[in-house]
Amino acid sequence: MNGTLTLHGSPHSLPTYRVALMMRLCGAGFSFRYVSFQRGMHLTPEFRQLSRWGQVPVLEHNGHVLVQSAAILEYLAETLGCFYPADPEMRQRIREWLFWDADRLMPPLYAWYGVELGRRKLLPLAFDPVLVAEFDRKGAAALGILDTHLADERFLVGDAPTIADICCYADIAFARLGNRALESWPNVICWADRIEALPGFAAPFELLAMQDAEISS
Amino acid sequence: MNGTLTLHGSPHSLPTYRVALMMRLCGAGFSFRYVSFQRGMHLTPEFRQLSRWGQVPVLEHNGHVLVQSAAILEYLAETLGCFYPADPEMRQRIREWLFWDADRLMPPLYAWYGVELGRRKLLPLAFDPVLVAEFDRKGAAALGILDTHLADERFLVGDAPTIADICCYADIAFARLGNRALESWPNVICWADRIEALPGFAAPFELLAMQDAEISS
Repeated sequence: MNGTLTLHGSPHSLPTYRVALMMRLCGAGFSFRYVSFQRGMHLTPEFRQLSRWGQVPVLEHNGHVLVQSAAILEYLAETLGCFYPADPEMRQRIREWLFWDADRLMPPLYAWYGVELGRRKLLPLAFDPVLVAEFDRKGAAALGILDTHLADERFLVGDAPTIADICCYADIAFARLGNRALESWPNVICWADRIEALPGFAAPFELLAMQDAEISS
Repeated sequence: MNGTLTLHGSPHSLPTYRVALMMRLCGAGFSFRYVSFQRGMHLTPEFRQLSRWGQVPVLEHNGHVLVQSAAILEYLAETLGCFYPADPEMRQRIREWLFWDADRLMPPLYAWYGVELGRRKLLPLAFDPVLVAEFDRKGAAALGILDTHLADERFLVGDAPTIADICCYADIAFARLGNRALESWPNVICWADRIEALPGFAAPFELLAMQDAEISS
């Protein structure tokens, strides 16, 4: 791979972690540029020009400016040649998991993290109890589907980890940061252990801090 | 393209419409198999075996069983060779829109349709006013982003329609079925007019009914 990788985001951002973990597990060093939402850095003209929809993460690579974490995982998988089997059938299964994650798993599990940050008054977030109940219902349903799949499988697609695992694993890491133990889904816990045993693995706040940094390969 | 295409789904399902519209606009005939959620057809062992996560749509093609509508759009785009520019940079932009749609646009706009069906007592759906307010807030935010992008562009990526447009257009069609006029987002309305002018275009309930059918090319 040629060119430097620059990741703009926040350690509080699940999608930012997903992209950082991918580069870490691929052994690709990168520059991290902290975007503080509390200080309004996502609203500056410079950042809005970079991030077409005002979201983090943004990845810069060789003049390309990439957004949407799952799409970035596909880009990195192709560019770095890792966590992406060549077989088209397996790639289709991976895409299905990426979209299922966006549809069912990530929204409630990421919300759990936001709810916890608000409860502990670490960020000025407050959620109506009706919304919290909805997050709980949807999170449990999605974790049930994941757990059932992982009863017979070591990874989501095939016998080795892929970007589908990295994508969904980040949700698990943030659910735990949101103070959820997940003991009702034992197959999910065993699968998360397998991800955490991969060479180079680092937990969210081990990998990224609230400051700019050079992350070595 | 070789082999028959069989789409399992419902005319009430936005993701089913998205896939049906794609095949229609590509001039690919298909068999439609109606899955009635009210009659519990999505819970039968036969359907659960077909649809790994119990969702519609499912597309069968040449022994492949495909789920998740946006992933199916990518499969059809590659297989049928339409609405998918070959340029990798454009394909990356398209993927970003597909994931942005799953993240921001589709959930609230599809929910508007569900709210309307419940209000008119056409389906036994009821939503807490807190949830409805959240759908309204998120829907307006996403439509604002879409409208801003379309102020200077005829289509989402490049000068011709792609699967990104077909994906997001389906949300607009269902928001209108949900009795939303969308006049606050005039660029979205003009863009939707351009999609509706494409040869072969058909609205949701023009294309699919609550019964099995053979849809000609």
